Amino acid sequence: MMIDKDATIEITAFDWVPDFARGYVRDLRPRWACEELGLGYRERLISAVRRPEWYFGEQPWGQVPHLRDGDIHLFESGATLVHLAERAGRLLPAGGQGRADVLSWLFAAFNSVEPLLMELGTVTLFAAGEAWAEARKPGLLTAIGQKLDRLEAALGERDWIAGDFSIADIAMVSALRGGGPELLAGHARLAAYRDRGTARPAFQAALAAQLAALDIGEAA
Amino acid sequence: MMIDKDATIEITAFDWVPDFARGYVRDLRPRWACEELGLGYRERLISAVRRPEWYFGEQPWGQVPHLRDGDIHLFESGATLVHLAERAGRLLPAGGQGRADVLSWLFAAFNSVEPLLMELGTVTLFAAGEAWAEARKPGLLTAIGQKLDRLEAALGERDWIAGDFSIADIAMVSALRGGGPELLAGHARLAAYRDRGTARPAFQAALAAQLAALDIGEAA
Ligand SMILES: N[C@@H](CCC(=O)N[C@@H](CS)C(=O)NCC(=O)O)C(=O)O
Ligand SMILES: N[C@@H](CCC(=O)N[C@@H](CS)C(=O)NCC(=O)O)C(=O)O
Repeated sequence: MMIDKDATIEITAFDWVPDFARGYVRDLRPRWACEELGLGYRERLISAVRRPEWYFGEQPWGQVPHLRDGDIHLFESGATLVHLAERAGRLLPAGGQGRADVLSWLFAAFNSVEPLLMELGTVTLFAAGEAWAEARKPGLLTAIGQKLDRLEAALGERDWIAGDFSIADIAMVSALRGGGPELLAGHARLAAYRDRGTARPAFQAALAAQLAALDIGEAA
Repeated sequence: MMIDKDATIEITAFDWVPDFARGYVRDLRPRWACEELGLGYRERLISAVRRPEWYFGEQPWGQVPHLRDGDIHLFESGATLVHLAERAGRLLPAGGQGRADVLSWLFAAFNSVEPLLMELGTVTLFAAGEAWAEARKPGLLTAIGQKLDRLEAALGERDWIAGDFSIADIAMVSALRGGGPELLAGHARLAAYRDRGTARPAFQAALAAQLAALDIGEAA
């Protein structure tokens, strides 16, 4: 585990979340990247329940993650992935078709796949049981199924979505996990892809670190 | 206008879309970036109605834009913006806090702001009149209003979202436009920001080019 209280890199995460969110909070993404890249990082834990007002000055939505790297600070998990990869010179090729592929699939994860799964989260978690959410669900699941069909076709028989393992995989596996464990029931190759990602020691280390941090704070 | 049939850069766009989408199709983003950067590009127009099957091999969702730059090809409008800026060495600083800010706001546009506005598009356009869509609308508008409040606070009195005009502004102004003309009625500073973006000669040239292309194909 790359946690090191003297590290230059600092990741802001929550110190407690409700059970359904444990292991799925987005600071997992830069934690995972740090573990893959061998970059030490320190944690700054804040309360999700009593979100400090000053934090909105650093992260405009008051969300996690936020990343600091010496004098530099960033927000949005996607931006933290690019920053960490460029800093370490790995997981995002410096140019050519390799970089083009990773950038394409990175934005595909954040802008084509994840938005539908965020809507699914609204429908199945935050608005669960509301009549409109039940009525929306079938159409949304159809749209998601079509997207997953295309994603599975694009992945083909490859292990990773854009050449060697890259930050596009960190983003895509994370997005797919966000759809819940049943999401990929009809997409065996995508399920295997997700499981290949989460079986990586770096993912497991990042997950353990997030879960440990979430035991620190007080429940709402 | 930077259209040049011999250019190295090729942007794939549609040759016709329904009226409501005219001027809002996402090839506008790389077109706008090319105009800002002084990069010539040629068009490859495809039919949205009879989408060629081979195209899914280039763009996994069958959507536009797709970008070619010599031997390199990319998809996802976000990836095209990064590629064009890095190629030209402008609109995305090479390092330091400048790069961190542009990356943060670029992903903020694509992953924090646009997903809510895509859901609004579903509710107000594609599922307009369906009972669930009407029931979803108030809660969604509240969530969007809160996001816009935070975005407006973060913009403050500045002209652009991340220092000098950058690809983060191309992304954010484009996302905000996607919410329809009334979206920013209660957010005067954001409305002025959007209008500053769309008043740029490069935006106007890109818009004119898209509209001209959309007159070429046959209606559905
Ligand atoms: N687009 C943002 C989303 C971040 C996000 O949704 N963070 C969640 C945790 S997974 C959060 O902080 N939620 C608390 C809240 O929204 O108030 C990113 O990718 O960083
Ligand atoms: N995340 C993609 C979205 C692209 C997208 O939504 N393109 C639309 C036009 S604005 C499209 O091709 N729609 C046709 C379709 O979805 O079949 C990007 O940013 O490039």
